[in-house]
Amino acid sequence: MRIVVTAFDPFGGQRVNPAQLAVAELPSRIAGADVVRFTVPTRFGAPLPDLKRADAVLCVGQAGGRAQLTPERVAINIDDASIPDNAGNQPTGTPIVENGPAAYFATLPVKAMVAAIRDAGLPAALSNTAGTFVCNHLMYRMLHATAGTATRAGFIHVPYAPEQGEPSLPVADITRGLVAAIEAIVAHPDGDLVSAEGATH
Amino acid sequence: MRIVVTAFDPFGGQRVNPAQLAVAELPSRIAGADVVRFTVPTRFGAPLPDLKRADAVLCVGQAGGRAQLTPERVAINIDDASIPDNAGNQPTGTPIVENGPAAYFATLPVKAMVAAIRDAGLPAALSNTAGTFVCNHLMYRMLHATAGTATRAGFIHVPYAPEQGEPSLPVADITRGLVAAIEAIVAHPDGDLVSAEGATH
Amino acid sequence: MRIVVTAFDPFGGQRVNPAQLAVAELPSRIAGADVVRFTVPTRFGAPLPDLKRADAVLCVGQAGGRAQLTPERVAINIDDASIPDNAGNQPTGTPIVENGPAAYFATLPVKAMVAAIRDAGLPAALSNTAGTFVCNHLMYRMLHATAGTATRAGFIHVPYAPEQGEPSLPVADITRGLVAAIEAIVAHPDGDLVSAEGATH
Amino acid sequence: MRIVVTAFDPFGGQRVNPAQLAVAELPSRIAGADVVRFTVPTRFGAPLPDLKRADAVLCVGQAGGRAQLTPERVAINIDDASIPDNAGNQPTGTPIVENGPAAYFATLPVKAMVAAIRDAGLPAALSNTAGTFVCNHLMYRMLHATAGTATRAGFIHVPYAPEQGEPSLPVADITRGLVAAIEAIVAHPDGDLVSAEGATH
Repeated sequence: MRIVVTAFDPFGGQRVNPAQLAVAELPSRIAGADVVRFTVPTRFGAPLPDLKRADAVLCVGQAGGRAQLTPERVAINIDDASIPDNAGNQPTGTPIVENGPAAYFATLPVKAMVAAIRDAGLPAALSNTAGTFVCNHLMYRMLHATAGTATRAGFIHVPYAPEQGEPSLPVADITRGLVAAIEAIVAHPDGDLVSAEGATH
Repeated sequence: MRIVVTAFDPFGGQRVNPAQLAVAELPSRIAGADVVRFTVPTRFGAPLPDLKRADAVLCVGQAGGRAQLTPERVAINIDDASIPDNAGNQPTGTPIVENGPAAYFATLPVKAMVAAIRDAGLPAALSNTAGTFVCNHLMYRMLHATAGTATRAGFIHVPYAPEQGEPSLPVADITRGLVAAIEAIVAHPDGDLVSAEGATH
Repeated sequence: MRIVVTAFDPFGGQRVNPAQLAVAELPSRIAGADVVRFTVPTRFGAPLPDLKRADAVLCVGQAGGRAQLTPERVAINIDDASIPDNAGNQPTGTPIVENGPAAYFATLPVKAMVAAIRDAGLPAALSNTAGTFVCNHLMYRMLHATAGTATRAGFIHVPYAPEQGEPSLPVADITRGLVAAIEAIVAHPDGDLVSAEGATH
Repeated sequence: MRIVVTAFDPFGGQRVNPAQLAVAELPSRIAGADVVRFTVPTRFGAPLPDLKRADAVLCVGQAGGRAQLTPERVAINIDDASIPDNAGNQPTGTPIVENGPAAYFATLPVKAMVAAIRDAGLPAALSNTAGTFVCNHLMYRMLHATAGTATRAGFIHVPYAPEQGEPSLPVADITRGLVAAIEAIVAHPDGDLVSAEGATH
């Protein structure tokens, strides 16, 4: 199995991106799968990494203010930026894919990923919004590009590193959480766990 | 113009529902529109109010933990309950409408509603998730029922009342915010404001 | 009864100070007491208002990040500023009063004030820290200046106004809360309620 | 050097206490100092551990809701419990030591401890309130018992373990943070760093 893992470069005035730092520490093989890493620039419309031979793609991004590793359930077809991206672009309400579906659900086993991260002794929760900035944009495009193919795709947001603000998680913990999530992707090639991971709002 | 406004009864062990308290105080006419109020039971699959003569429907729900009035941008096609509803049902990952679209965007002018609430001196933000409980369920079904019709639909979450916990907003303020939101619905019959109301995650 | 009420001017890059806005709207008589208002500059070592004929003094300050009106229980003898004051001074660990006591408890009926604000339908809680910036500084000096006299003194922190960030409370609500707090000061000239208003940490 | 480290047993309906779990993992020697561990029951008035031969005492407690390791600056002379302690007692506003000083400042180098925890890659901040429950109670009594002696004393609050709620920190991280704090206690036998670690409120 070949798993593509992407991370973004720093944005929004931060000097580091904990997703990038954590992905850089991932081993090249996890649970027998090859892990292929890419850094994606934090801007709307950046080229996607080559997914042709990928069995799965896991995109990783920073979520300042979150205290848990949060696999994302869904990506929505809208770019609405509260800050400019790293190229200075700030769309405020345009579709990512003209006439595309309003949303795509992740095709990764998000509940199994949450469970695996928790089993590794780390905080995790299923998120129902990836926002409307570059993270959601990338997740939507990955799911659009892989729709109808055998390649599964999804996104996970991670907390700040301690030097960035609170709440935070040490980067070594974030890396351990990503390893656990990737192990769950390998262990659940068809479908997901059934468990209560919903939110009242 | 005829605007249907719904609220839920209390749930999750709370004795009151601030949405219900605030909707009960709404006047029957706002900005020349007739306001017709319904209480909807907090359970999956409850019958929808009659929307036949409605030009718009605004559903209102409690979001404990939020500090602002938050019009919802999107509803997703999933029931995933972290707590049982008031009938004791707790679906954990079933579609609301079998083979329905993954999501519907609100057809109300959500950015104009946010702006109007702020102009009334109250805290507001656009939300990108209505959760996966009964609120999202109702919003999705309303948008499904009105898809392709002239009836616009959407949802707004409101903070706790002060007696419920923090953060909170006095019920009279919530009512004032709903009035402002309804005025925006009347004032923007076609389309919405263009403004940056996005979230990075 | 004569009650002095102070507020600070804006600081920390904010354009308004909700304490100042709310105090400006206070009536000149509350529950039969004369209310005398002062604006105090947000800097260490500013002159205190004249307290000679005051029966009580209530200082009011902004607490961005708090969601409730919070009477303060105690002031501590330390200036430790995370940002410069409005005169550019930033002490980092010096006593307010050399050889003064480590702390003074408020001599206002803080639990009765919390109860009165809640009875007015507004969110309130007793706080156990006024910080280590100019608010704590003023509270400590007021309590030091009135120690051993009949003049009671204390402090109340208030949330942001909605235009400043979240959580917030409309200024009219803050004013109503201050009126309720002052009514409690008048109604409890000797001692305070006995009630559980503690914090585990 | 001999350093006594205390932790509490679980309270408030929790099955674990992360302070207890983390202290249990501390080595018996840190930076050349002997580390002597005690578990203290979570109740008001419990006997203090024997401090006769201790050069320093560091008490450790759980602070659900905090996202950082937080050395405490000050303990105040009040018991005001929002929940019963483990013996069922709930004082609501009584002094810890009749006629004792209103507060004691920690005699440990709290700013050096914060800096050391951060240097270990973990989140830390100086706290200005230990609450009014058993944690503050123990800290005040430790400082009262050691006042005027060569024994230094203080307290550090730690976040939830991941299984308890969010925000949280893995217990191994909490242990690492405590080791760093103890190293700072050893390295700074006289006085503390001078640095800006204050709070505006």
